Formats: sequence, C-alpha cells, structure tokens
Amino acid sequence: MLDKSLTHARAHHDRYLAQLFELLSIPSISALSEHKADCQRAAEWLVADLTRLGIKNARALPTSGHPVVYGEWLEAGDSAPTVLIYGHYDVQPVDPLGLWHTPPFEPTVRAGAVYARGAVDDKGQVMLVVKALESMLAAGGALPVNVKLMIEGDEESNPAPLAEFVVAHKDLLKADSVLVCDTGFLAPGRPCIPYSLRGLAGAEVRVSGPKTDLHSGAYGGTVHNPVSVLATIIAALHDEHGHIRIPGFYDEVRALAPEERAALAAVPFPLEQWQAETGVQIPWGEPEFSLKERVGARPTCEVNGIWGGFQGEGGKTIIPAQAGAKFTMRLVADQDPEVSLRRFTDYVLSLAPPEVKIEIVPQPGCPPVMTPIDTREIQAAVKAYETVWGAPPIFLRGGGSIPVMATVQNELHIPIVMLGFGLPDSGGHAPNEHFELEQFYKGMEAVMHYCHSLRGG
Amino acid sequence: MLDKSLTHARAHHDRYLAQLFELLSIPSISALSEHKADCQRAAEWLVADLTRLGIKNARALPTSGHPVVYGEWLEAGDSAPTVLIYGHYDVQPVDPLGLWHTPPFEPTVRAGAVYARGAVDDKGQVMLVVKALESMLAAGGALPVNVKLMIEGDEESNPAPLAEFVVAHKDLLKADSVLVCDTGFLAPGRPCIPYSLRGLAGAEVRVSGPKTDLHSGAYGGTVHNPVSVLATIIAALHDEHGHIRIPGFYDEVRALAPEERAALAAVPFPLEQWQAETGVQIPWGEPEFSLKERVGARPTCEVNGIWGGFQGEGGKTIIPAQAGAKFTMRLVADQDPEVSLRRFTDYVLSLAPPEVKIEIVPQPGCPPVMTPIDTREIQAAVKAYETVWGAPPIFLRGGGSIPVMATVQNELHIPIVMLGFGLPDSGGHAPNEHFELEQFYKGMEAVMHYCHSLRGG
Repeated sequence: MLDKSLTHARAHHDRYLAQLFELLSIPSISALSEHKADCQRAAEWLVADLTRLGIKNARALPTSGHPVVYGEWLEAGDSAPTVLIYGHYDVQPVDPLGLWHTPPFEPTVRAGAVYARGAVDDKGQVMLVVKALESMLAAGGALPVNVKLMIEGDEESNPAPLAEFVVAHKDLLKADSVLVCDTGFLAPGRPCIPYSLRGLAGAEVRVSGPKTDLHSGAYGGTVHNPVSVLATIIAALHDEHGHIRIPGFYDEVRALAPEERAALAAVPFPLEQWQAETGVQIPWGEPEFSLKERVGARPTCEVNGIWGGFQGEGGKTIIPAQAGAKFTMRLVADQDPEVSLRRFTDYVLSLAPPEVKIEIVPQPGCPPVMTPIDTREIQAAVKAYETVWGAPPIFLRGGGSIPVMATVQNELHIPIVMLGFGLPDSGGHAPNEHFELEQFYKGMEAVMHYCHSLRGG
Repeated sequence: MLDKSLTHARAHHDRYLAQLFELLSIPSISALSEHKADCQRAAEWLVADLTRLGIKNARALPTSGHPVVYGEWLEAGDSAPTVLIYGHYDVQPVDPLGLWHTPPFEPTVRAGAVYARGAVDDKGQVMLVVKALESMLAAGGALPVNVKLMIEGDEESNPAPLAEFVVAHKDLLKADSVLVCDTGFLAPGRPCIPYSLRGLAGAEVRVSGPKTDLHSGAYGGTVHNPVSVLATIIAALHDEHGHIRIPGFYDEVRALAPEERAALAAVPFPLEQWQAETGVQIPWGEPEFSLKERVGARPTCEVNGIWGGFQGEGGKTIIPAQAGAKFTMRLVADQDPEVSLRRFTDYVLSLAPPEVKIEIVPQPGCPPVMTPIDTREIQAAVKAYETVWGAPPIFLRGGGSIPVMATVQNELHIPIVMLGFGLPDSGGHAPNEHFELEQFYKGMEAVMHYCHSLRGG
C-alpha cells in the first residue's frame, strides 16, 4: 500500500509541480490589505484541490483575518490516530522587488529548485503534504490515519486570528497529534526535528519625568532624566556575563539533560556561519552554554526598541519629559509568561527611583512549547527521515516562538511534530525564495512514511 | 546732566512706548523663512531710529543669517570707556496662537504691562537701552561713555551668524565691556546679575551591532544588543548620587567660594517653585550642592535623546542593529569643551564591549563664561540697580549657555555685564509674552545710571 503510494507520487511529479506553480502564482501576501482577495483566492484554490483529491468537508472557514482552509478524512477507523495537519498559504511581502532574479509570483525552476515567493514558506511544504495525501488516496483509496487539515492565511502577519480560531473550534480540531510542515533541515542531507520552541512575554516600559521637555540649562543637575533612569533599568537586566538579573527568573527553567546537551553539541553550527548570518564577529551571552544552547534552551530578556527626547538632526539641549522601551523575554520550558512578566515588572519597579513615574504595559505573550521526544509520533518522524534520507534527524531546540503552537499545546493538549524540509538559505522572508525539487519530492515521501509509521505500519 | 536725561526720559514715556509698539508690530520671527523680510524691516526700523536720535554710522550689516544692526557714538573721548551694547530684534514663533488673549503683533497695554511677542525678549529691553541713549543725547547732546551697538536678528534660531560676525568684525567691535540687556529679575523688586553662564560640549553616540535587525528568536542570547550596550554606557555616566563618573571630569571645575555659596543661598528659590516649573515632586542631583548651585555652578552630563530598534505600536521581536543617543554637557568655569568632550569620548569607548562598534560624533560646543564680580563694570551695575530700585542685585550663576557670549569672551576678551529687567513668568517664549511698563521705564533709568557710573560720574 505504501509502495503503491510512493510509486503513484513518483509517476506524478510533473503534475504535482504544476499544481504547486498554480498556488505559487497567487500573490497571497497577508500583511497587505490590497492582497486580501488573493488570500481568499489561495484558500479557495486549496479547497478545490483538496475536494478533488478526496478530502471531505473541505471549506474556507472565516476568521477575524484571512480564512482557514479546513478539510478532513476520517475513514481510517477509530483505532487509527487522527493527525491535525498545520500549514499556511499566506506569504511574506516581496520587497525589495529589484533583487529578485525572476518575478516572485512567476514560479521558475533553476538549478533544481523552484524560485517563487512562498516556495519553501510555506506553500511548497503545504503542497508536499497535500500531494502525499493525494498519492495515498489515489493509490489505495484510503489513508493509514485519520486526517484533519488546518491551513491558515495569517501566519506571516498576525497570530490572533488563528489563535481565536483554535479556541473557537476545539471540537472540530480534536486530534491525537499535530503535524507542522513549516521548518527545515540543518543542511542538505541533515534533517532535524525541533522539539521545543521558546515562549514569549513582553512589556513596554514608560518612564515619565518632568511635565514637558525642560531646558537643560535652566534645570540640568536638578531633574532626574527619564532616559537615564530607563538606561539604568536596562543596564540592570543583565550581568556582565549575559545572565539575567531578574530575581527568580531562572527558577522554572528546565535544566538541559546530559543527553540533550550531547545532542545539541552534535548540531553543526560553525562560528563562521553565525558570524555571516549576524554580521557580528564576537558572540555574547552566558559563557557556560553553547550558542545552540543559548538560543534553544536558555531564556532571554531583550530590549527591542527604545525612544525618548530629541531624535532629529543636530542638537537640542533638553531634559526629555519621557522615555520608553519595548522588551520581550524568550521563555523556555517550564517558564510561564505571566510569572515571568510579573517578575520583570516587580524588578523594574524596584529599580525605579522616586523622582520618576514608571508605567509598564504588558504585551501579548505565549508559553514555551516542548514535545517529549519519546512519543510514538516523534519516533515515527525519526523513522520517516531515516528511511528517506538514510540519516537520523538531529533533535534541536528552536529559539523562536510560534504563538499558535502554544495555543495548540494549551487548547488541544496534543504533541506537536515538526517535520520540515526547507534547506538553509532558502530565503524564506527574502528575495529569491526557493525550494529544492528534491526536498519537495522526498518530503512528500517522508510524509507518507510518517503516516504509515504512525499507524504502526 | 544725568538729572536732565532722567527728566527728559520721564517727559517722553508715551512717545517711547509708541515707538516700542512700532517695533513690536513687526513680526520678525527669525526661525521662519516667510518672515525674512520682516526681520530685515525690523533691522531697518532700528537703523532709522538710531540715526534719528543721533547714533552715527547706523546700518544693517549682512551676516549669513539676518542682518546685525550696528551703530556707534564715539565722541565721549579717549579717556571714556567704550561699551558694546548687545541685544536682539528677532523673536520666537507665536504658536500656539489660540492661547494669546490679544494678537502677538498687535501690542496692547493691560494691567500695567505691554503684551506682545518680543515685549520682554528682547525688543522691550533693546528699546529701553536705545531710549536711554536718546534721552541722554537729547538732554545733554552727549553720552558719558563711548557706545557701539550690536543688535542681532538670529538669537532665537541660530547662533552661527553672530558668532561669525563677531570673529569677522573684531576691530569694529573693539570695546572695554559688553552690556547685555536680555535677562531678568528674580522677582519684582529683586534685581539680579548673572555673572556666569555654563558652557556646552556635546556628542552623538552611535552603537552598531548586527548588520541588520535580527530575529530575537533565532539569535537572542548570542548577540549583544546595541540598545543594552548604550543603556549600560548611559547608566555608567552617573553614580547613584548624581555625580558624573567620567574620569577627570571635575578636575578643572572652579570651587564655589564661601561668599559665592552665601550669595547663592540668598537667592530665593522655594522648592514649590521648582516643583511647579518642572512638574516633578522630588529633585535629583549632587546632594552636597543646593538646587541653585547645581544649576549654576556644577557641570552636567545629560542625555537629550535616544533611539534604537522598533518604536511603533505593538511589538517586534528583534535585536536592533543600531542604537544612538545625543548627549550634552553643561560646563562651568574653568572647564574646557574640548577637554570635556575628549574625556567623555575616552570614557564611553572604555565602556564599549568588543561585540559592538561605537561611533562618537562631536557636536558644536562653547566654553563657559564668567565675569569677575569685582570689576568696575559690575560695580557700576550694582550701583545702578541700587539707585533705581533701592535694593542691591543678587549675584547669580546662570545655568544656560549663550554661545555668542562665549564668542565675545574669547574673541574680544572683555567683561560681560548682564543688566536685565524682565520679570519671572513674562512668557518670553510662550503665549501672552509681556513686559511691565514700570520695568521698561525704570530699566531705561538704570541704563542711564550705569553709563554715568561707568564714566565715574
């Protein structure tokens, strides 16, 4: 049955690629309101394709943003697990357009890769799952597992609509695990499985001093400068080794197990690569942790922006009336965004001198996500990668946050499996985004292996 | 001779006031290019008035900005001192216009004061000097001292044109002392003499980290955040008592003599007034110095503005590529702007960690100004105040900087005497600016007393 599916897929590479081209040609940029109709069009294209290939109840469900494409195939029986498949059909804006070698919405194959906006993030990966389903249904008339699809259109611009959608449709989305196809390899031939994502907590801190900008000649030396106060607070957030000084901040941080450290140490990440990516020569941060550990397994407290007083050309001799800064903390298991925010707030207030007023405005956050790696789903993913690429995946802790994954974890309480096939430097958010055809076709096979393996096949 | 001059002035109050109204009616706002012709018109009005009353060689000399009104009367003889009279005919903008009770360029007398833009800053004070000269020339055909006038038109907007003018016309401006009529009383009946002004040194500090704003999920924990670095630098500029921590910064600061401290202690400045003016409840700064001492006799290092990263609404999870801030130091005798700036620069660079690049861009500065109070000019000023108001002036160190005064001090090497007659809350830069008629008329008499006293009369 699996063999027949694989054979069917291989026989239809060209048609599948042509269908991917159709979807890639729709400029479904979710952030730009002038592309609202294009997002709708991409959703409808997917509904039509899913319906044609045998997915039931395929439809575009409204949200507060762009529609979510839903569909299901639930005929594998009660004993078979149900997989909720997540992806997104919206894409990033295309600026700067002048750097594209071919137009972003006219897909082109060059040197074995499809070039187009959305090629790897995420239309190419959505389509390899959809075409895996199509191959299995066409070859055997059935899927080894029950399947629900949730393909959203707001991933690149606004996490709120999908979060609301998940909360509102908990019953519809009921499943045993989530399959996310939106990540990538460490290098060609080196698959990886991110098994955790960092959470997020954030706040804006506003410091108010004098009732108006003051003449620094008339008052300088007597008025506490709000920018200085804010700077003192920011400076007190870290010690000279990059440790966060918020009392209790690390209390709930789950320690890295020796085998995790060993696994992360096996992740190839040469300093030269970090230097090239960041443009910085010398890394910074907790010296007792490696770069990969700092990004994936350690929390941060970052100032994302700051402002206050005169920012124009030349000089203005004032004591600014106000200053402000935005902060986000990246959280790891088992930190809680609310607890972390409260500790941040308490610490900032404890640093505030009596001459100024401090206002702290919380920003939306999300908890960290962590999937145990000894689950049957993760083991099935390992097996799928090994079978298709002949190499075991590397387990990685991801540094980023995908708010909807936290929503899924918190609302649906099911393991999240990230199977991803992008290669580094695919330009997911940059000009000349591309996706290697080999990854597209092999990814399709990996998904088929995964589904069969999940069934215990 | 002085008596006849005073009598003449008193007999012509109404005409002098009418002439002040004429000058106040010209909207000579130097900052706004649409008022360029009005500035020219105000200069020409003054040239005509000076010529009519007997000042020689009165003319509007071009500068890189608005013209300087020059004139002279040098017939007092070689044994008489020469006084360079400084003032300005340009005025501040009038926004917010809606808050004015009468139009800013339609002078009106209400409750014993002239209301108009420029009434006190500085047309009213320029005119009281000019009318003092007129009274003395009309009553006796001569002045007790030689006089040169330098009435500029850029004071409210740009210090450069006059600074260039002074450097370019050193010979023309040669004099024994400068009389500045552009300051004020501490309170009705309480004249004061500012005998020092703070200098200024400034720089912009730019911190560069990654080559672009980085995703804080992918890199947070490994990249030193430029805003954090800048904050650490700013936080290190002061200790918790408000002392500046730049090594050597205070080395050249002239200590306050016991008699100066006593004089400053006599300056009435209730905390309630400071609170009302600043909108702050609790003062800040070096605890071993009073508020007046901190403002007038102590240097500062102030951050005037800061920026970096994301300043918009909501959040953006980035590590900013860059951050910057503007700084100015207010300097006191005998600090040097270049030395202070070098120490600031060295200190900032010493605080910079190796993970970032620091660029320091100097801004224009000026040295502090200090006139010894035991000069004959200052003693003449004391006598003039005492004679007209029956109260000795309070000696005050001013906190602000008037760059042209530093130029005068450095280029002409002559004592600067600030005789000023504005009252507090005259709205010099605000709506409903006004100047009390009594101050206008008595100020005129004080100037006549001052000139006679200078001659030794």
